[in-house]
Amino acid sequence: MKALVFHGPGQTSWQNVPDPSVKDAADAIVRVDAVTICGTDLHIVKGDVPEVTPGRILGHEAVGTVVETGGDVRSVRPGDRVLISCISACGRCRFCREGHYGQCRGGGGWVLGHTIDGTQAEYVRVPFADLSVHPLPSALDSHDAVLLADIFPTSYEVGVLNGNVRPGDTVVVVGAGPIGLAAIATAQLYSPGRIIAVDLAASRLAAARDLGADATASADEEPERLVEDLTDGLGADVVIEAVGVPEAFEMCTRMVRPGGHVANIGVHGKPAVLHLEDLWIKDVTITTGLVDTHSTPMLLRMTAAGRLPGAAMVTHRFELDQMEEAYDVFSNAGETGALKVVLGGPQHDTVTVPPQER
Amino acid sequence: MKALVFHGPGQTSWQNVPDPSVKDAADAIVRVDAVTICGTDLHIVKGDVPEVTPGRILGHEAVGTVVETGGDVRSVRPGDRVLISCISACGRCRFCREGHYGQCRGGGGWVLGHTIDGTQAEYVRVPFADLSVHPLPSALDSHDAVLLADIFPTSYEVGVLNGNVRPGDTVVVVGAGPIGLAAIATAQLYSPGRIIAVDLAASRLAAARDLGADATASADEEPERLVEDLTDGLGADVVIEAVGVPEAFEMCTRMVRPGGHVANIGVHGKPAVLHLEDLWIKDVTITTGLVDTHSTPMLLRMTAAGRLPGAAMVTHRFELDQMEEAYDVFSNAGETGALKVVLGGPQHDTVTVPPQER
Repeated sequence: MKALVFHGPGQTSWQNVPDPSVKDAADAIVRVDAVTICGTDLHIVKGDVPEVTPGRILGHEAVGTVVETGGDVRSVRPGDRVLISCISACGRCRFCREGHYGQCRGGGGWVLGHTIDGTQAEYVRVPFADLSVHPLPSALDSHDAVLLADIFPTSYEVGVLNGNVRPGDTVVVVGAGPIGLAAIATAQLYSPGRIIAVDLAASRLAAARDLGADATASADEEPERLVEDLTDGLGADVVIEAVGVPEAFEMCTRMVRPGGHVANIGVHGKPAVLHLEDLWIKDVTITTGLVDTHSTPMLLRMTAAGRLPGAAMVTHRFELDQMEEAYDVFSNAGETGALKVVLGGPQHDTVTVPPQER
Repeated sequence: MKALVFHGPGQTSWQNVPDPSVKDAADAIVRVDAVTICGTDLHIVKGDVPEVTPGRILGHEAVGTVVETGGDVRSVRPGDRVLISCISACGRCRFCREGHYGQCRGGGGWVLGHTIDGTQAEYVRVPFADLSVHPLPSALDSHDAVLLADIFPTSYEVGVLNGNVRPGDTVVVVGAGPIGLAAIATAQLYSPGRIIAVDLAASRLAAARDLGADATASADEEPERLVEDLTDGLGADVVIEAVGVPEAFEMCTRMVRPGGHVANIGVHGKPAVLHLEDLWIKDVTITTGLVDTHSTPMLLRMTAAGRLPGAAMVTHRFELDQMEEAYDVFSNAGETGALKVVLGGPQHDTVTVPPQER
């Protein structure tokens, strides 16, 4: 089959590799019908994620069709159309039993495209298939669904839930890339009073408004003053960091009100300065997190019901074998205006196995 | 009357000052029967708290007897023996209505010995008396009670509750001064599996064991390795910072397990480094806070019932007019072994106004 293989910092290729096969009775082999590229993949290609070694197939988000399952798999069968979650879960370890699948100690967690081969390929082996894929309602378009492999549950769980967004809150989202936009979309499930988006790119701020932000501020034009003005000088109830650089995180800690929450979603490569000399007295809660994907079934239902915007932030569509071109477009988002790029898609959405055979 | 007056960094004196008087109908004037010195007072004397200006009477913890009340005060009357809380509360602002009295915007919060004259005096004016003093059960010794003006509610609310201590947890308390010791005592209300105390002073680690710590580690002898060994390499569920220096805070963030809590109690004067490059993926919750004292009535009941150690950490007792000597002993804790020093005390514990007159 063809797959995108990482060969070391700055080097990837869409090339022939052996087809994956069932290695464990809990595995499923899935044909990839639609796949996307994550900001984290760009970090990996740059060499920022040392656990990813040369030879690794990248990608941790996809929609596909099950083609083979190991003997222990009970929840899906060949022919089933499934969402492949970015998080695999053994289901047996302490963390899985508490619903903290992202911290799985039994061989799951974030493994696809990280410590095992991933989804940017024609086929992928998914471990612990019962807890690592989600059967898809047939009404759900692959391009809507593929955004629920990572960015929607990440933004919702690590941003909105960790940030404790509540009705009436002023919520600031710093960074209006795909993750920030999904945070803006899912924060509305908790009826905040006002959402303020901050980014450098005017096109992203426009997308933020389209997805429900009430106010926007350019990151280089005193966004802190806007937040102050809109909150009578108090600060925001919840500030969500969706960038992953120290400056953005530090801005978040200045924008939060006494008693408020800073929820970090960004993937960081460097330490930040925590101004405890100001914050010690402020009753601030700061959270970090990798997604657990415990919310994925609910988010799938809400997307199928049209209550979440799904593929609204998909700006570029490609065939699967245009992988290298898709990476170019996504990694040059400043010029191309790319938010989310999707490869493959609706032409595969028809399930080929009739219901009576399942 | 006599009072301890701050005259600028490094300068204080026990001197004659005018008696306080009722300025507002919500005020009470309280005769100070027992008072203590807080680590925060030492910060103020050093000049670390710029809001405290020369001429200010210090102190925010005391037990006393009400001698006069303004016309709006309903909860206490002259003759009542009361605990003066470190937090005053207007009761009307948004934060007070949510129980976040420490963040009061209506003129309360931490004001005593900070922005208005405090308790290290023969008499003190307490604003918003209805919500800022607590009538004391007659069975409760002043030396037990005075520790509930600040350190017990602070350690419990900002350490134990913010840290979300739960049954079976491994709890690490970094810093075994009075605040850390009160955190060790109050953490036991939630039945942790194991409490580990970390400090540099052997005498403080001994006090930590006396108050219920299961294991102790000297801060300069690889406490992180002990925590690793005792948690199978996972880290502690809850780490409480009770020192107030960047190195201690940073140690806490290295000791916490994935999904765990770091609760900062320490008063910090400098920023810390937050290693987001390690923490972004770890599902960590970090909290800061000033005490609200919403727990004070419960802690008073538990102390009266003998369920909390009260004055067990009082190492030195003085008369009120030995204030300067008490400061010397407390600020040289390294030599004197002082944990908590108390001035005044049980000789005043008998209420002089007979019940039939109240």
